[in-house]
Amino acid sequence: MERGRLIALEGPDGSGKTTQIQLLEEYLKELGYEVVRTREPGGTEISEKIREIILDNDNSNMSYMCEALLYAASRAQLVSEVIKPALSQGKIVICDRFVYSSMVYQGAGRGLGMDRIKSINEAALDGLEADLVFMITIPYEEGLKRKKMQKTLDRLENSGNEFHKKVFQGYLDICRKYDKIEVVDGNRTVDEIHKDIINIIKKIKL
Amino acid sequence: MERGRLIALEGPDGSGKTTQIQLLEEYLKELGYEVVRTREPGGTEISEKIREIILDNDNSNMSYMCEALLYAASRAQLVSEVIKPALSQGKIVICDRFVYSSMVYQGAGRGLGMDRIKSINEAALDGLEADLVFMITIPYEEGLKRKKMQKTLDRLENSGNEFHKKVFQGYLDICRKYDKIEVVDGNRTVDEIHKDIINIIKKIKL
Repeated sequence: MERGRLIALEGPDGSGKTTQIQLLEEYLKELGYEVVRTREPGGTEISEKIREIILDNDNSNMSYMCEALLYAASRAQLVSEVIKPALSQGKIVICDRFVYSSMVYQGAGRGLGMDRIKSINEAALDGLEADLVFMITIPYEEGLKRKKMQKTLDRLENSGNEFHKKVFQGYLDICRKYDKIEVVDGNRTVDEIHKDIINIIKKIKL
Repeated sequence: MERGRLIALEGPDGSGKTTQIQLLEEYLKELGYEVVRTREPGGTEISEKIREIILDNDNSNMSYMCEALLYAASRAQLVSEVIKPALSQGKIVICDRFVYSSMVYQGAGRGLGMDRIKSINEAALDGLEADLVFMITIPYEEGLKRKKMQKTLDRLENSGNEFHKKVFQGYLDICRKYDKIEVVDGNRTVDEIHKDIINIIKKIKL
């Protein structure tokens, strides 16, 4: 059986990733594809336990490298337990965040360096690469506004303005650095963004 | 203030590490040193939460790379929260297991390769190296016998004979490969082993 396809949706909180993933999943299912959705950190029983440690506001003194390695550990489990088996069954896997999020949040936001985070994650990915990466962008102020509407913020979201400014800069940098990333302007209607994503999807052989 | 010293005790379960650490700690304290003891995985609040996930028998389908990254995450937190601050206060830190355990258990035992595990842990250690590493060795059969006397085995201990044979081979290999490791024959009386360790300690400037 032909290997399936791995599509990752990346972008800041509030960029509308989850809505777009929902619409993309429906679109692909109507075309007859089997679709598996994942979220990060998490997506397996073990990864969800790791997620709890990462996002728990009680763990405010977590070192940045510990945080980066926990994200990588969660991803390693997701890759081996869910993503690789689904791909080998010919399914399409849509990831709500993937390795690029780590490069932005831990590499740029925490200052550990994107290349260092990329190299740690090469161990976690075990040779796996996304076939298509969408980055949904929104202006910095818009992201802030949407974030403030959330009731409770997790440990990462509570990391302060300096962190979030570096993360925003990281998003800009990573889009410039990796040709593979398809940048999608998230500051439009849900339907406009969805149509953009579908048009890009048509370019790759599913 | 002069930087303290980092001493790691490594060796299979049942090799008598913990007893020797206790004796070494008493010896150093009598000489007037401030001593900090750590255990791995664990040793900080966050690292102990990671330890629970690693050792929990419920997590029997954990991927080997997830396991390796969790050990590294736990170690990263321990290094930044406990070991580095203690060393900068001039204290002697005694580690009950350190990076060599990961190289043996995940590198050799799980087959991920010692160099790969070493490289992941370079991120966790952030430049830190042990000043002295003791490896307490016991014959394979002796280790098995002592292990069987334990009432409940954790997920690692329950990993089967093939794993434990590879771990044993890993211990032999790592002792040959790293001149830094001081090999101590653990198949003797507690007192004989302790004297050996003290004699070696005297060689380094504390």
